[in-house]
Amino acid sequence: MKLAVTLGEPAGIGIELLAQLKHELADCVLVGDPGLIQSYLPHFPTDRIEAVYLSEPNELGRLNTANAGYVLNTIKTAALGCLSGRYDAMITNPIHKAVINDAGIPFSGHTEYLAELTHTPQVVMMLLNQVMKVALMTTHLPLKEVAQAITGDKIKSVIRILHHDLQQKFGVQDPHVAICGLNPHAGEGGHLGHEEVEVITPALEDLRQQGYQLSGPIPADTLFTPNQVKNYDAILAMYHDQGLAPLKYAGFGESVNITLGLPIIRTSVDHGTALDIAGRGIADAGSLKAAINLARHCVKQQQKHAC
Amino acid sequence: MKLAVTLGEPAGIGIELLAQLKHELADCVLVGDPGLIQSYLPHFPTDRIEAVYLSEPNELGRLNTANAGYVLNTIKTAALGCLSGRYDAMITNPIHKAVINDAGIPFSGHTEYLAELTHTPQVVMMLLNQVMKVALMTTHLPLKEVAQAITGDKIKSVIRILHHDLQQKFGVQDPHVAICGLNPHAGEGGHLGHEEVEVITPALEDLRQQGYQLSGPIPADTLFTPNQVKNYDAILAMYHDQGLAPLKYAGFGESVNITLGLPIIRTSVDHGTALDIAGRGIADAGSLKAAINLARHCVKQQQKHAC
Repeated sequence: MKLAVTLGEPAGIGIELLAQLKHELADCVLVGDPGLIQSYLPHFPTDRIEAVYLSEPNELGRLNTANAGYVLNTIKTAALGCLSGRYDAMITNPIHKAVINDAGIPFSGHTEYLAELTHTPQVVMMLLNQVMKVALMTTHLPLKEVAQAITGDKIKSVIRILHHDLQQKFGVQDPHVAICGLNPHAGEGGHLGHEEVEVITPALEDLRQQGYQLSGPIPADTLFTPNQVKNYDAILAMYHDQGLAPLKYAGFGESVNITLGLPIIRTSVDHGTALDIAGRGIADAGSLKAAINLARHCVKQQQKHAC
Repeated sequence: MKLAVTLGEPAGIGIELLAQLKHELADCVLVGDPGLIQSYLPHFPTDRIEAVYLSEPNELGRLNTANAGYVLNTIKTAALGCLSGRYDAMITNPIHKAVINDAGIPFSGHTEYLAELTHTPQVVMMLLNQVMKVALMTTHLPLKEVAQAITGDKIKSVIRILHHDLQQKFGVQDPHVAICGLNPHAGEGGHLGHEEVEVITPALEDLRQQGYQLSGPIPADTLFTPNQVKNYDAILAMYHDQGLAPLKYAGFGESVNITLGLPIIRTSVDHGTALDIAGRGIADAGSLKAAINLARHCVKQQQKHAC
């Protein structure tokens, strides 16, 4: 197995997280600046470095638009390596969107960039930890745009991708997915919003008739209790905070992000670049470790499935 | 101390929850139908029953619009008793809104009904458990109406009420409140929504200049982690699911609802009438027990504060 790990934003904590995990990287190729890698991991074998070079010297904690192109190149190199079969999966360290935008490059995140690179029309963001898996119907939308973004077609395509990848990447034979309502109390029969009655329930009915095992729409504050979450293989939340606030509460720094629907396996940490503490040696590598382990697990599941 | 406890919807689990707690009700007056009380609590002293009579015989699990007026009368009797000083606080068992509406009575919930009865222009719903206190900026609104309902004036009046009641009812001398962002990542500097920049932050700034100790707006999925919540006396969520999904996850059946801003103390369970299991003896009295204990605690704090 060969996993590509990008270094992420060079001014952030990515490289020091990798240094913390130096004894657990035997199957990993690091994608980034060789000088940066050697300064933190002096004994890392050079044949497991895929060299992408910084444009300007890096300073921890200080963003530099001149290195925005470098950051994108690490992601692109890892993704193309996965597509060509050179790598089995990629794991990404955190990047800083704003500095890439400030460099004049339109960019809205790893997930969208990888979708474009791999010509994937629809991807699904899922976060998971030991307690639960939460996929998101909408991701980084202003709250006021969420309701109108949820259509029956979108619900169906997201659930199909989720179902498919639970089988292929997680080895769940007959996935049972619970779907959150959009409105409080899942709309309470139309008293607190109509989307459950008009959009969500009909879409779920269609899918059930095709054999999908689905529960919902269920009020989010009923569904996200320890007794409930364990009944399902995954939960589909309608928007970012509805799903990720309880997931992060339950996950305690060990949540991982995976992009479903891509032709490659890509996992990621669930945190940001933490510029304020970069280089101080206090960053927690728990999420990166979990992201690498998840990638390993998915590779094995997918190989099993292909046999 | 004298606490009024309403029986709630007679077809639901209220009366059996009280029966489970029969040895812990020495300071409680039960407000409801005497026959219903005696059938579950045969030895309950009649001088601690405030009689409000069912219109028609009750059947567990079956809603009856003829008894909707009875349900409202129990609430009204308890509230007027608190206002007149006969009771120190009231605790409410769950009711079923739809059957009251079906009886032709406009009614949107305990909270709003009590606000009207007590001529209170603005109340705040807060849920709490051992882990955290979560107040809500908006409560039972369709999600698509949330963003426009959040104004600077509303933020300020909600925080003033929350601050005041944390002092008076909870004995917190100098409350420190964390406020969630409305949008994912709290709007990420305007990239994912403008309300944080245009509405929330200016309102918080005004209040800070008046001496309020406030943190935020903070992304909900950063704030709702075990390490973060313990830093604050309360968290203010912008809408229902944002706050209540992580609270219920953390609370494990022992969360309690309290209405802030009222001239009386009112607490409530955090669950519904559970018609499907009414009478089967399997309902969990954990939340009712916690609601009664919270009312006791608030009465003592308020008495201390008044000295």
